Amino acid sequence: MDENTIISRIETILPDKKNPDVVVGIGDDAAVVRWKDGLLLFTCDALVEGTHFRREYFPLYNLGWKVMAASASDIYSMGGVPKFALLSLGIPGGREKEIDEIYRGVKDFSSRFQVMVVGGNLTFSSFLWIESTVIGVAEEPILRRGAQEGDLIVVSGYPGEARAGRELLEKGIKGYTHLKEKFLKPSPRKEILKIVKEMQVRAMIDISDGVGKDLKRILKESRKGAFLKKDKFPISPALKDFSPEKAFHYFWGGGEDYEILFTVPEGSHLPPSIEGVNLTVIGRITGNEGEIITPEGKLEAEGFDHFARV
Amino acid sequence: MDENTIISRIETILPDKKNPDVVVGIGDDAAVVRWKDGLLLFTCDALVEGTHFRREYFPLYNLGWKVMAASASDIYSMGGVPKFALLSLGIPGGREKEIDEIYRGVKDFSSRFQVMVVGGNLTFSSFLWIESTVIGVAEEPILRRGAQEGDLIVVSGYPGEARAGRELLEKGIKGYTHLKEKFLKPSPRKEILKIVKEMQVRAMIDISDGVGKDLKRILKESRKGAFLKKDKFPISPALKDFSPEKAFHYFWGGGEDYEILFTVPEGSHLPPSIEGVNLTVIGRITGNEGEIITPEGKLEAEGFDHFARV
Repeated sequence: MDENTIISRIETILPDKKNPDVVVGIGDDAAVVRWKDGLLLFTCDALVEGTHFRREYFPLYNLGWKVMAASASDIYSMGGVPKFALLSLGIPGGREKEIDEIYRGVKDFSSRFQVMVVGGNLTFSSFLWIESTVIGVAEEPILRRGAQEGDLIVVSGYPGEARAGRELLEKGIKGYTHLKEKFLKPSPRKEILKIVKEMQVRAMIDISDGVGKDLKRILKESRKGAFLKKDKFPISPALKDFSPEKAFHYFWGGGEDYEILFTVPEGSHLPPSIEGVNLTVIGRITGNEGEIITPEGKLEAEGFDHFARV
Repeated sequence: MDENTIISRIETILPDKKNPDVVVGIGDDAAVVRWKDGLLLFTCDALVEGTHFRREYFPLYNLGWKVMAASASDIYSMGGVPKFALLSLGIPGGREKEIDEIYRGVKDFSSRFQVMVVGGNLTFSSFLWIESTVIGVAEEPILRRGAQEGDLIVVSGYPGEARAGRELLEKGIKGYTHLKEKFLKPSPRKEILKIVKEMQVRAMIDISDGVGKDLKRILKESRKGAFLKKDKFPISPALKDFSPEKAFHYFWGGGEDYEILFTVPEGSHLPPSIEGVNLTVIGRITGNEGEIITPEGKLEAEGFDHFARV
């Protein structure tokens, strides 16, 4: 059973009742609820020892940073501003000292991105896990379902680097610091808020499971298809340098960079970069629901499933 | 290192910066932040296999119910109304089918207490853990720090039953269904909101770690002491029936009933019960900071520490 199947089952068990306060329930990057005359966004993300990292190569400081980045990214990718966070830790007995180092990472993230940790929970657990809940605000959240035919499909940065970094760390290969750093200390794309302010962004998602898989999610929710040009894919020099053969697969199937995938109306004046982060048009939205095509033929999503990948 | 020590250390690492939006940060039942012209409450709680339960005796349905109850209780115990929830699951590969049963418990709780699940997260983990984040609202949250000298100290229901229930289940002892049920399917004290509406409640906490330990928390935050009458303690007939010798210790040192401990000004017209839940005055607040005395002498807090209890 993969994560999508499970989420669909949960949606059946927990139907979105007709609650007018819930603008977006289960199934987008974050939930959106109406409160007073504004909108609140909630999301959570976890890093689990053995699933998302191994202690041998993942510094505790970075765990704190990364779990915050993962949740904050879900807020940015809806055009929202993360404000507050809760942090939960499950930690093995005798390893309590690791908490300080984890929290130092949390604190640095918190200062840098102005997300304030206001509470949390601590519990004993037979291995380490860490979870962050982030609460944000947005005037008009951008959902996965807003893509329209003709829209340009844009991707930020160089997706795939983090996935390669993970592989390098798992295999204990020396060097390639830049790729490893992308996995160990990702920066969520706060910069995207500038684009949201300046132009109409119709659909958006953060790339946590690979460009292919996350594009599929936009297409599914928007009931559209995509026409892509593979030669436009922003595949980083570092990725090509590490593995020219696998570079495409890292880009297409790798996640955890927290780069952003979004669509804007045809003819939008998209800058080539925002605050140093490059933006690349990789194709456009079509009316052929669920289909991703290229001049060379169909392209299947290949993704990274934290859940199925057991 | 016990949970209090660790929380103090975290408070040092993550100082409550002068953020005027944060009314209560780390260290109360829930965090309170100001947003628009109202207050929001956030809290989270986790149940971890091997720490809080074992699968042999804890039905999956009840896990879903109980993790929601634990977080909702933290909102009620601040005089708030829980509104929305996120649910996170770490689940071993091959056990995905257990999710349905867990969610059925979540759903029943959600309908009964009107707390809507709007999102969450699923991840692979080598054992089961489940975490709920609950978001609530309150006009005037009641904190731990508001107790004043002379206040009556009141406890709801019959604390200690859940702890006895846990022991019975752990030891595989037959019978005593009522005690076991209190551990497996606790009801958070929504009824307390009626008291909050009708009279001035000065300090409040839910009893998650034992009456003694949670009273200590109120005393510490309020910088007060307590004078208690042990013969007034509401020790349930079921508890006395199970173990006359240990009944007091279950009451004083047992948690997870999600009963409520609160203080009201001397002379308050406290009803003997609200909606079937009995309310008992067990003593009053004194000026002797940190001291709990009875006519028979000092009383030390003996609590149940999920963290230290490794």
